[in-house]
Amino acid sequence: MYFEMFTQMRKQLAQLDLWLEKAAEFARGKSFDPDSFLGFRLAPDQFAFARQVQIACDTAKLAASRLSGKEAPAFPDTEQTLEQLRDRIGKVIVYLEGFTSADFDGAVTRSISQPRWEGKTMSGADYFLEHAVPNFFFHLSHAYAILRHNGVALGKRDYLGTLSLRPAPDHR
Amino acid sequence: MYFEMFTQMRKQLAQLDLWLEKAAEFARGKSFDPDSFLGFRLAPDQFAFARQVQIACDTAKLAASRLSGKEAPAFPDTEQTLEQLRDRIGKVIVYLEGFTSADFDGAVTRSISQPRWEGKTMSGADYFLEHAVPNFFFHLSHAYAILRHNGVALGKRDYLGTLSLRPAPDHR
Repeated sequence: MYFEMFTQMRKQLAQLDLWLEKAAEFARGKSFDPDSFLGFRLAPDQFAFARQVQIACDTAKLAASRLSGKEAPAFPDTEQTLEQLRDRIGKVIVYLEGFTSADFDGAVTRSISQPRWEGKTMSGADYFLEHAVPNFFFHLSHAYAILRHNGVALGKRDYLGTLSLRPAPDHR
Repeated sequence: MYFEMFTQMRKQLAQLDLWLEKAAEFARGKSFDPDSFLGFRLAPDQFAFARQVQIACDTAKLAASRLSGKEAPAFPDTEQTLEQLRDRIGKVIVYLEGFTSADFDGAVTRSISQPRWEGKTMSGADYFLEHAVPNFFFHLSHAYAILRHNGVALGKRDYLGTLSLRPAPDHR
């Protein structure tokens, strides 16, 4: 299910891109600078909007990289505008499009490490379920919450995107 | 991976329970009514805290039920206190503890429906990835964000809980 979940993350990043577009429209309609969104936050000691977007992007990118062993592009966290954030989201979507199901064949048993774990490791399966998926949705949802809190009209459909619904059975 | 993801949801619900305990402590320390948290929200037209908790609980519960075919207990959405919300979380944790991996053997191909889909269906696999997992983490993260926004001292460790880290290799 690794590949399928990364496909879903890619879909969610495309929705995130849409929220940024709606945020820019909202700002223009209210005559304020769209890029002021980058500094908005829900609590003084929580990450601001730009950082939430960066971490959502990095969590998806680094998880796909670590679980497949494929190198990930580096992004320098220097975005100053909504357009630059959208560009980053687009690059991560392109990166995720480069994977196939076979890339994650050995993911379950890979040994995953991060600098902050000081030499400790997690299995690929544990890392994916306990760390990557919860963190991705945490920062994605916080980006959404910051926009909603500041007046951008987003709804559950903007969050989930189009569902793969199958037509109702024909009862003629 | 269905069973493993529900195990992770169960872990996240136990973390949610911890946040409610910390919210109650915070309120007592500031001498305000802990149960006022139930009505707090991030935007006038977003769900309040109580509803975010109820939906996080229901999303996990209903997804496990729909993907396994096992009946789920009904909860009436009448909680008026943090303690009552914690009781509901506890009941969902107990419900999720009753599942085994085998319960989800046919989950991928199950036909899932909801009243609001007007007869349309989703495959179990699509429903899980496109709907259940994103919605669960959305409402969980919003519950977290509402508490953080209102001063409760939560951190990423409270969100993720204890990770299954393995000791660093011994290099003697």
